[in-house]
Amino acid sequence: MSKIKTIGILTSGGDAPGMNAAIRAVTRSGICNGLSVKGIYRGYDGLIKDEVKSFTTEDVSGIITRGGTILKTARSKEFMTPEGMQKAYETCIKEEIDALVVIGGNGSLTGARNFAMEYDFPVVGLPGTIDNDLYGTDSTIGYDTTMNTIMECVDRIRDTANSHERIFFIEVMGRDAGFLAQNSAIACGAEAAIIPEESTDVDQLARFMERGIRKSKKSCIVIVSESPKCGALYYADRVKKEFPEFDVRVSILGHLQRGGSPSAHDRILASRTGVGAIKALMQGQRNVMIGVRNNEVVFVPFSEAIRSDKPLNKGLIKVLDELSI
Amino acid sequence: MSKIKTIGILTSGGDAPGMNAAIRAVTRSGICNGLSVKGIYRGYDGLIKDEVKSFTTEDVSGIITRGGTILKTARSKEFMTPEGMQKAYETCIKEEIDALVVIGGNGSLTGARNFAMEYDFPVVGLPGTIDNDLYGTDSTIGYDTTMNTIMECVDRIRDTANSHERIFFIEVMGRDAGFLAQNSAIACGAEAAIIPEESTDVDQLARFMERGIRKSKKSCIVIVSESPKCGALYYADRVKKEFPEFDVRVSILGHLQRGGSPSAHDRILASRTGVGAIKALMQGQRNVMIGVRNNEVVFVPFSEAIRSDKPLNKGLIKVLDELSI
Amino acid sequence: MSKIKTIGILTSGGDAPGMNAAIRAVTRSGICNGLSVKGIYRGYDGLIKDEVKSFTTEDVSGIITRGGTILKTARSKEFMTPEGMQKAYETCIKEEIDALVVIGGNGSLTGARNFAMEYDFPVVGLPGTIDNDLYGTDSTIGYDTTMNTIMECVDRIRDTANSHERIFFIEVMGRDAGFLAQNSAIACGAEAAIIPEESTDVDQLARFMERGIRKSKKSCIVIVSESPKCGALYYADRVKKEFPEFDVRVSILGHLQRGGSPSAHDRILASRTGVGAIKALMQGQRNVMIGVRNNEVVFVPFSEAIRSDKPLNKGLIKVLDELSI
Amino acid sequence: MSKIKTIGILTSGGDAPGMNAAIRAVTRSGICNGLSVKGIYRGYDGLIKDEVKSFTTEDVSGIITRGGTILKTARSKEFMTPEGMQKAYETCIKEEIDALVVIGGNGSLTGARNFAMEYDFPVVGLPGTIDNDLYGTDSTIGYDTTMNTIMECVDRIRDTANSHERIFFIEVMGRDAGFLAQNSAIACGAEAAIIPEESTDVDQLARFMERGIRKSKKSCIVIVSESPKCGALYYADRVKKEFPEFDVRVSILGHLQRGGSPSAHDRILASRTGVGAIKALMQGQRNVMIGVRNNEVVFVPFSEAIRSDKPLNKGLIKVLDELSI
Repeated sequence: MSKIKTIGILTSGGDAPGMNAAIRAVTRSGICNGLSVKGIYRGYDGLIKDEVKSFTTEDVSGIITRGGTILKTARSKEFMTPEGMQKAYETCIKEEIDALVVIGGNGSLTGARNFAMEYDFPVVGLPGTIDNDLYGTDSTIGYDTTMNTIMECVDRIRDTANSHERIFFIEVMGRDAGFLAQNSAIACGAEAAIIPEESTDVDQLARFMERGIRKSKKSCIVIVSESPKCGALYYADRVKKEFPEFDVRVSILGHLQRGGSPSAHDRILASRTGVGAIKALMQGQRNVMIGVRNNEVVFVPFSEAIRSDKPLNKGLIKVLDELSI
Repeated sequence: MSKIKTIGILTSGGDAPGMNAAIRAVTRSGICNGLSVKGIYRGYDGLIKDEVKSFTTEDVSGIITRGGTILKTARSKEFMTPEGMQKAYETCIKEEIDALVVIGGNGSLTGARNFAMEYDFPVVGLPGTIDNDLYGTDSTIGYDTTMNTIMECVDRIRDTANSHERIFFIEVMGRDAGFLAQNSAIACGAEAAIIPEESTDVDQLARFMERGIRKSKKSCIVIVSESPKCGALYYADRVKKEFPEFDVRVSILGHLQRGGSPSAHDRILASRTGVGAIKALMQGQRNVMIGVRNNEVVFVPFSEAIRSDKPLNKGLIKVLDELSI
Repeated sequence: MSKIKTIGILTSGGDAPGMNAAIRAVTRSGICNGLSVKGIYRGYDGLIKDEVKSFTTEDVSGIITRGGTILKTARSKEFMTPEGMQKAYETCIKEEIDALVVIGGNGSLTGARNFAMEYDFPVVGLPGTIDNDLYGTDSTIGYDTTMNTIMECVDRIRDTANSHERIFFIEVMGRDAGFLAQNSAIACGAEAAIIPEESTDVDQLARFMERGIRKSKKSCIVIVSESPKCGALYYADRVKKEFPEFDVRVSILGHLQRGGSPSAHDRILASRTGVGAIKALMQGQRNVMIGVRNNEVVFVPFSEAIRSDKPLNKGLIKVLDELSI
Repeated sequence: MSKIKTIGILTSGGDAPGMNAAIRAVTRSGICNGLSVKGIYRGYDGLIKDEVKSFTTEDVSGIITRGGTILKTARSKEFMTPEGMQKAYETCIKEEIDALVVIGGNGSLTGARNFAMEYDFPVVGLPGTIDNDLYGTDSTIGYDTTMNTIMECVDRIRDTANSHERIFFIEVMGRDAGFLAQNSAIACGAEAAIIPEESTDVDQLARFMERGIRKSKKSCIVIVSESPKCGALYYADRVKKEFPEFDVRVSILGHLQRGGSPSAHDRILASRTGVGAIKALMQGQRNVMIGVRNNEVVFVPFSEAIRSDKPLNKGLIKVLDELSI
């Protein structure tokens, strides 16, 4: 294995707050350790199309406070094809990029692993996703910020729910994982959470309603995980039919959950894992995601990180159950 | 006219941040001036049903920081009927309420005026609505907070719009008035605003798109005022059809716009007009809304305040136009 | 008078949130109206030293959300000398700058006026200061944001004051003007404000203390305007001596009051006055500050704007008095 | 051991955001599990003086969003004496309190342990302190909120530091522990942190200054941990003497660091450990602090939790070092 002189860095998939902090950390730590750093724009698409720029420490100055990603991001279909991967590899050769740092979620790190294996290329990943669905790290970059954003929104909706004594079904992101929904329900003192990991039927809904009503006259908040077949609108409709006497409203928080200045937790996580990524590459590691577990930086093999079944802590369901009495 | 000894206070219509600050100010200023104060719950409905509680200064302690209204609020159909009004009047007699302070928007103050005229009853109003659609006051209680809430949400969405190079149509509240949409578009540096006061056709949309694209590759934000027939979804669909190459998204901010701790501006406006309401009643004023104009507390006759055509400053349209180049 | 083709823009004096929004507005409106725009760095010092850069709309992209000023700022002693002014004028000639837009407070606009009169040079000003001490505009750029920042800080301190039942003297900015102190005291529900415009003796302090104690056991918050001779530390010491039984604490909010993303109000004010500055210059106006009064953009002669005695509305003192019972 | 029927709950020491969320969780989980819950006011002093009130679920409704502690808090000298402890014990007997839940930091849990051992009384603790200096839990209740509060303040100061090209020494809380200082320095992209765990001499300061200056002209931020002998003022004075050419400022964040609505992280931590406290007591546990480690609720013996030497992760010093280049 030849020595790494130049690394390329890209962000891929859905943007997450803290990605910029990660870009900054990788860039500065790389330069601090004698490496050249090149920013690749628009994720794997930019790697395919050679949208690459040399980075100095100045290029990442002041970005730690900003949401989104200065490298832009996208989901690339072309990169999933052998032709696309080949073009991406050719860009690496042309740009003299010896190793890649990929910041993204499950799909992006799967792509990273495939590329690394196909071309025997050094790649490390950072867990950049608001969904918290990656194995081997206590949380992912963006998750904590999004939790706080959801919490602030629901706190606001609680004001109006209380004033009008209404029932609100609030839909939050999270794809197939209920981390955001279950935890934000606890953080907001919601009456219930509806998550992909647990089935929720109408009888349970009735129980939630009664509990909310018993507690504070007629107001009640239910957090619902987004889902193709049964989001907040579905449950609201069901409840309206069963309990026509209630004033039921729906709020879909949507894309505002992705943005905003990252929280302290996410900035630190991004900074630590970004420094860790350079350290891993300098140690000859590859095919690992950098995480933080039990307050220590850890290297997690891609194959472990992208396992699809990161479980929700069952204790959290009991916590919400006891506290929403 | 007999001397006023006891006032009743209620909040009506959609809740607005700063209503609690207004309740606090009316209560404390009333007590400070030797009056008894009674809180009426759930708006005019509570007046009809005699949901009334005597207030001390302690009852309103600490509420200046909180969104919503501790008095709850509702829209009352019964109060629009002669029978409903009669019951409300009987509650006033029974509770020995000599004057009413009503905090609410256009509809609520119209109800206040009708009640005052029907029963020759002293009523003053405070402009409590996020829509800013009341005449004679530079702004309404809740408007400034909601402006800031919308701005924070759009700033967040801008992060993700930039990262993914998308076009966002973001729907904000305001009923028939474009104040929130036009001003938040300026505050957020949006590319365009679509408001009820001005017609916007597809050619203009095309111009907005091109301008946004020219400016920053492919990202663009359009703020759309809510409207029964053509909200954000309508315009997004039109644009998707005309410009299938764009990645168009919609975000409907919804009820979170109503809540949250009030801004300094709204707390001060609520405090000043609340103190003004007591002063007005002690001076024998009635049938007036208390506003702040040119930094002075003013008494605005109800008939003037609730005129339906508070105009949007045309200069604001030009400002957005020049700044979104 | 020859036609204006190129304008120079600078920020001067203490930075204020919204200065960037003003820079953006002047730049874009200028370019939109066919002018060239040059940014001058570090206030009048940069004008003296020819620190000038041509601006495009891209240079001001995305800055509306950011605190501080991308043009940097400083207080220039050299500009107060004839030699300094002469050098500044020579830079204007050399850079072909036909007119200046100065964003700053009282001192900066006084310098602007002096320069304009000395060299018969077209200068307009924008009211950029957190102190709100400029005449002829309902508020200054930065004032509203700083009010909200102070309010959030005091809300936080109230939590700990209540929990520990303490008395807090909190010092806020404002130089010789009590706007920030008096208004933030109302907004925070403080027990009292000590402002330069009114004398406060120890007997009054005793009354404040008793009132706060009567209201909520032993907690009390007093907002104190900064002042060279008697700030928060001075009053806290006096109270400690007179009332040794109290747990008295001091918090000096300091420089954090200047920063942060500007509020919606300040962004709009900056945008409207920025557009107004270009309009004024194109109309042949000079020696005016652009303000907003009664929701309309107005041109205020410098001599009027910088009068030293903008009075605090006396009604505000009565409002705080009644509401802190 | 007799069965526990009634628990008492108190908060002690410095207040921390999330204490209310913990009170809510203990109360609701206790009631949900068939126990009676009594709130004890003003920490151990209130236990001594029998300031006790029976709690229902309604008493803790809505408090999850609020900073401070509704139970008030204090540091009790009397409780450190045998007589004080005896009185506290007598209150427990009189009020039929069978077990105590103490929410507080190092000193408060030491008191809890002493009381538990002296009277063979069931006591469990929750880690409620912003300092994060308790062993056996990944973080303490309040730490994450305070981190975010510090970060927001420093982000604001960064705006003005950049605009004026100044050097700021910013003092943060943390007592003898550098967690807040070191981590907030990373989160804010500060140039350096001065912490109790590491000695910092003037040569290092010179290096920090040069680095900051090299990076961004003349602006630089140093976070300093509070310390009786050498806080921010001390270092600022040293630097001013050595480098008179710099514009050096000091900001002491002070008590505002303690307040504010708790972050999602702290609300969830408080909720989980609060439920854990009831579970521990029902299982016959005592003399344990409830923590969260590696995302699991754990019971940590008091003797382990209050060890005085919780170490700062050395990797964090390297992270800051590499990223502030």
